[in-house]
Amino acid sequence: MKEFIIIGHKAVTTSFSLNDLPGAAGRMDILCRCVNAALFLSHDLRRDVRVYLILKGGAQPRLVRFDGAGVRYLSPDERSAASLIKKALEKQAQGFWTESTPGVSVKMGDFGDLLGELNKKITYLREDGIDIRKIPNSGSADHLFVLGDHMGLTEDEENIIKGREHEIVSVGPLPLHADHCIVLLHNEMDRSEKHI
Amino acid sequence: MKEFIIIGHKAVTTSFSLNDLPGAAGRMDILCRCVNAALFLSHDLRRDVRVYLILKGGAQPRLVRFDGAGVRYLSPDERSAASLIKKALEKQAQGFWTESTPGVSVKMGDFGDLLGELNKKITYLREDGIDIRKIPNSGSADHLFVLGDHMGLTEDEENIIKGREHEIVSVGPLPLHADHCIVLLHNEMDRSEKHI
Repeated sequence: MKEFIIIGHKAVTTSFSLNDLPGAAGRMDILCRCVNAALFLSHDLRRDVRVYLILKGGAQPRLVRFDGAGVRYLSPDERSAASLIKKALEKQAQGFWTESTPGVSVKMGDFGDLLGELNKKITYLREDGIDIRKIPNSGSADHLFVLGDHMGLTEDEENIIKGREHEIVSVGPLPLHADHCIVLLHNEMDRSEKHI
Repeated sequence: MKEFIIIGHKAVTTSFSLNDLPGAAGRMDILCRCVNAALFLSHDLRRDVRVYLILKGGAQPRLVRFDGAGVRYLSPDERSAASLIKKALEKQAQGFWTESTPGVSVKMGDFGDLLGELNKKITYLREDGIDIRKIPNSGSADHLFVLGDHMGLTEDEENIIKGREHEIVSVGPLPLHADHCIVLLHNEMDRSEKHI
């Protein structure tokens, strides 16, 4: 299983207009592009991927999960992912996962709760990390990646990562958007799995 | 200069609604994501990039050019690129480039016309191409890439490429969206330029 956590520091936690994702919805566009980058192949979906969005722009944070094995009604455009996130936020969130549409679920919770639930080694993407091409292939197909939005991660969030097993990785020499990093991570894993 | 041509076979050539990019606008969302992938760094733009969109969903095809050195009013979300494309299509297109907003221009013309104008070696992205990591680095920073949309390229379009100097390249073992291919191409060029 390949899992991606993306933290949206400004992303709203209540229903929003699909016509202003960057503004009123709190850079929801970033999270939507990450859903696309993590889940889409040409004319297919990556079934072995789960995406966790952490929406922190409200009074209490929300977690929204897209499961590649079960997701339906998802098209590659930003508005499509946004529409499913919106439906998830319109659902009454609980302390456990509740499915809002097929393959999309919502829950109350924050970053630390989610890492505790997933409980595996973290690969944290940061510009000054070790170049991913210089890390020996572990042979494992089980990965948990953490990426920030346009604001990166806060010191508190970094401290939560440091309290757990982790490595800090970069995907190239220039600072990139989170969704572009996800495309590059998938490419490394695809090549590793096909031994090329 | 790094130049990307993306062919939108269904993309409309007249003004369109920003609320239905995949449907009524003829998969305009694909072209918008390609503009994002080609031009955006984190908190910056790639100034040495030009993107050419070929819109073929109308009676006469249109060319729309985004120039990273001069583009303004462009945000990373699909709707932002779509809004600039829409403004370009609302301009009366001529047989020469006319600027519609800063850094965005429009022109009448088709694929063959554009290749003639740019007149340089083509790197054509196709799933069965040579793996980009196996191609020796030419040392050149001057590239022209051609990518298809969800329909790939037609036989006629491939024949136009075959009549010119070209190579056929792939970026990985799985079939990917055009915008994901652009991210991977940039990463190879970024690494090459930084010698890593």
